[in-house]
Amino acid sequence: MIYPPALLRLIEALRCLPGVGPKSAQRMAFHLLEKDRDGAVLLADSLRQAVGGIGRCRRCRMFAQAQMCPICASNSRDASTLCVVESPADVAAIEQSGSYRGTYFVLMGHLSPLDGIGPDELGFAQLEALFAQGDIQEVILATNATVEGDATAHVIAELALRHQVKPSRIAHGVPVGGELEYVDGGTLAHALAGRHTLGR
Amino acid sequence: MIYPPALLRLIEALRCLPGVGPKSAQRMAFHLLEKDRDGAVLLADSLRQAVGGIGRCRRCRMFAQAQMCPICASNSRDASTLCVVESPADVAAIEQSGSYRGTYFVLMGHLSPLDGIGPDELGFAQLEALFAQGDIQEVILATNATVEGDATAHVIAELALRHQVKPSRIAHGVPVGGELEYVDGGTLAHALAGRHTLGR
Repeated sequence: MIYPPALLRLIEALRCLPGVGPKSAQRMAFHLLEKDRDGAVLLADSLRQAVGGIGRCRRCRMFAQAQMCPICASNSRDASTLCVVESPADVAAIEQSGSYRGTYFVLMGHLSPLDGIGPDELGFAQLEALFAQGDIQEVILATNATVEGDATAHVIAELALRHQVKPSRIAHGVPVGGELEYVDGGTLAHALAGRHTLGR
Repeated sequence: MIYPPALLRLIEALRCLPGVGPKSAQRMAFHLLEKDRDGAVLLADSLRQAVGGIGRCRRCRMFAQAQMCPICASNSRDASTLCVVESPADVAAIEQSGSYRGTYFVLMGHLSPLDGIGPDELGFAQLEALFAQGDIQEVILATNATVEGDATAHVIAELALRHQVKPSRIAHGVPVGGELEYVDGGTLAHALAGRHTLGR
């Protein structure tokens, strides 16, 4: 190969990024070397700092730079409600909605035996320890509305019931502002099955 | 924002990569922190080494770790033929074809006045100095078969003629193995206009 070894190593290293194949990695390496060497140095520093500084909150498993994330460390959050989500991005989305004042538990995935992701990888023991403490009254299962997300929610609900914690699942149905015509069949079936009575 | 500062900085830094928006950058950061911290460290090291170690060959502007790239430094290459290409990837492609034994000149782009890319950015002065040395007999213009690539080739041809260097353009036509039915009109027009006589 006609590229210098350091360039080949950079192209190879860029492939650790999800969704980046050999051609994209080459394009990224060329772009950085030709047009954005400052950006490359900044990226290298940010990677080192992130890997060195970011761990998991010991209570909720959210990415955190301290032992506890700001939400778990806060006094103004309702510690009797726990919302279980699959990813840190879900925490960000729920926080952005401004409609939740409880705490979180981040699974970092969903049950997927074929990929080797079981209760251990998702921190079920840690979650059970939280239930056993007795502070939590309700656990809101906000895993994704997929087969795997539903299965994960189901298993956690069983776990919660064993510790006298009330499990609930977030509602699935037609998105607010959504037009029925463009909503898929599965969602419509969910919305119909989950209908609630109006009036007195 | 609920993410730790080091994570926000990493997401921001990843956006220096071409084609990476806020959502992809977040997905990449999560992936690295959750599943591939070794990869992240390796990427950081590779970035630093590449930025520190890779410069341009002083003759052909190809990425190189020494002052000269292996092709320009080699004695076994025909220095009387120069192939002008837009990018290092083009050098790799031509080398892989195994059908060229001359040397290269890498423009690192094409003339594009609207993007502020003119003769200075493409090293035309350096190219002219090579022509002026008198070693080069023929310059093969292998810029891309686009409007910009053609324009760039045309300007370099003028430059070559002024120094008594013979300019030539690589052939454009139907790709080998290509079926006429699926070839676009522009390529067909090129192929027809560039036809050559067969037989004696």
